[in-house]
Amino acid sequence: MKKIIGIDLGGTNVRVAKITENGEVLQEIKSPSYGMEGPEKVTSNIIELVKQIDDYQSCIGIGIGVPGPVDTVNRVMKLSSNLKGFVDYPLAQKLEEATGLPTFMDNDANVAGLAEARVGAGKGYPIVYYVTISTGIGGALVVDGKVISGRRGYAGEIGNLIIDPYREPFNNLNAGASESEASGRALTRKGQAVFGEDKINHAGDVFALYDQKDPEAIKLVDQMTTDLAVLFSHISLITDPHMFVIGGGMTKSKEYWWDTMIEKFQQRVHGGMRDVIFTEAQLSEPGIVGAAMLPISHGL
Amino acid sequence: MKKIIGIDLGGTNVRVAKITENGEVLQEIKSPSYGMEGPEKVTSNIIELVKQIDDYQSCIGIGIGVPGPVDTVNRVMKLSSNLKGFVDYPLAQKLEEATGLPTFMDNDANVAGLAEARVGAGKGYPIVYYVTISTGIGGALVVDGKVISGRRGYAGEIGNLIIDPYREPFNNLNAGASESEASGRALTRKGQAVFGEDKINHAGDVFALYDQKDPEAIKLVDQMTTDLAVLFSHISLITDPHMFVIGGGMTKSKEYWWDTMIEKFQQRVHGGMRDVIFTEAQLSEPGIVGAAMLPISHGL
Repeated sequence: MKKIIGIDLGGTNVRVAKITENGEVLQEIKSPSYGMEGPEKVTSNIIELVKQIDDYQSCIGIGIGVPGPVDTVNRVMKLSSNLKGFVDYPLAQKLEEATGLPTFMDNDANVAGLAEARVGAGKGYPIVYYVTISTGIGGALVVDGKVISGRRGYAGEIGNLIIDPYREPFNNLNAGASESEASGRALTRKGQAVFGEDKINHAGDVFALYDQKDPEAIKLVDQMTTDLAVLFSHISLITDPHMFVIGGGMTKSKEYWWDTMIEKFQQRVHGGMRDVIFTEAQLSEPGIVGAAMLPISHGL
Repeated sequence: MKKIIGIDLGGTNVRVAKITENGEVLQEIKSPSYGMEGPEKVTSNIIELVKQIDDYQSCIGIGIGVPGPVDTVNRVMKLSSNLKGFVDYPLAQKLEEATGLPTFMDNDANVAGLAEARVGAGKGYPIVYYVTISTGIGGALVVDGKVISGRRGYAGEIGNLIIDPYREPFNNLNAGASESEASGRALTRKGQAVFGEDKINHAGDVFALYDQKDPEAIKLVDQMTTDLAVLFSHISLITDPHMFVIGGGMTKSKEYWWDTMIEKFQQRVHGGMRDVIFTEAQLSEPGIVGAAMLPISHGL
């Protein structure tokens, strides 16, 4: 059984684990990532953590998941808000030099999708499209167990897909971008605009008002299901996956939007596409497991 | 040098050719397809044509391009308006039985994209997205020389992608579908609505009025470039290709829309995506050449 080092690097914490090719976590170490102290500090810390993994040299390689777009060919980040100084920084190369293990990098949505496709909800399906609906919205196309990352890692930047060009733009995204209209943060923002900031702290407060049959809350959730349906129709008409795997915090409230979203999706695609499977993500640690799948998906 | 039989099957005509793996056409036969006379007649005619190809048994396989979505795994058409009775008809299997050659099938946009990616404008690029803008709009995602056809061949049905949900629906497509808004037929329809059916026979008549600085024609072309920009942003944010290859009849009028469309596209994607290459399709016979590429892309 192959074993791999998976690394989930965030702005606050970093987790390093030894994982089997089946996705079983054998050993895991968590540490602050020192994301604001510069790449040298972050890198030397990660190298130490990897060397704390028992018999790390027996692993076939290292995979790293990072936030934001990655140039997977040159193995560098292309944008980084939570990790200071990391754009174009050769983290993967430095890990490779320090450990002797071939090292691969991709963004967190892509590695989560890879994990779900290879050893999670999408296992056995040739084309899996993973969508995370949380504070933001991200996605990953996995074909035959391999992420299609794109020319510069921007494939799956579905949070910026235009759902309705006549809405207001937010956060440097397109006017009517899916993340600005159908994410958890979007529902919170819209709820606050209607009910006031004191009443709405998070998307769950809007769903609570929906439960009380508040007509404005019903309208907001109805708009969200339409917007998500358009998002999924975009993805489906371009990739026609065997399965959509949906993860992220908003799945906790799925009883409010899941079924209606699928009905509206079915109205926006061709007949033969309507029975595509929508399923919930099932891995508890997709980030670190997916990172570990990177060397395997690259042929190791 | 491998040789392959490529077949381009349409409702009116069928072309059968012997083609090298580099895309060179060695021999070609054209015939009526008898598309309305039922699948037995169509099939027996194609078998005869294949047997007319010199030394056809020395070819490694057969590839067929057909109009409309294809189940590439079961090698059958899923929709067919120009070929009567072809839904789920085992054409590929029958060709295989009659010739002894392994036979593969895909839809015409996918095979054209495959041809451009392997031996045309996209040669050498890992991810090529092919878009045909003609009477309709179609597309194909080609990764490492292989078409991503989707679960049932609907990947690349980009003519149905929603560009603006507030427009009128046409032809069973979504309201605001790209094909209804930015195809040659769409521009003709919109031109007729403004200028009258007697003045506008095809999209070129709208461009002619644009040349005369007609403000309504300028408005129509401006809307078309915006709609195409949104279409390309959708594709780019999902697949982040190295290159867009654009074919189809509307490229003949590209001086009216190409550059403006790209500028508007760049406003709708992330910074690192703006320099994706847009290039014109370059093959004169992408349909039959791409059909011939199918067996190779499947590993033969």
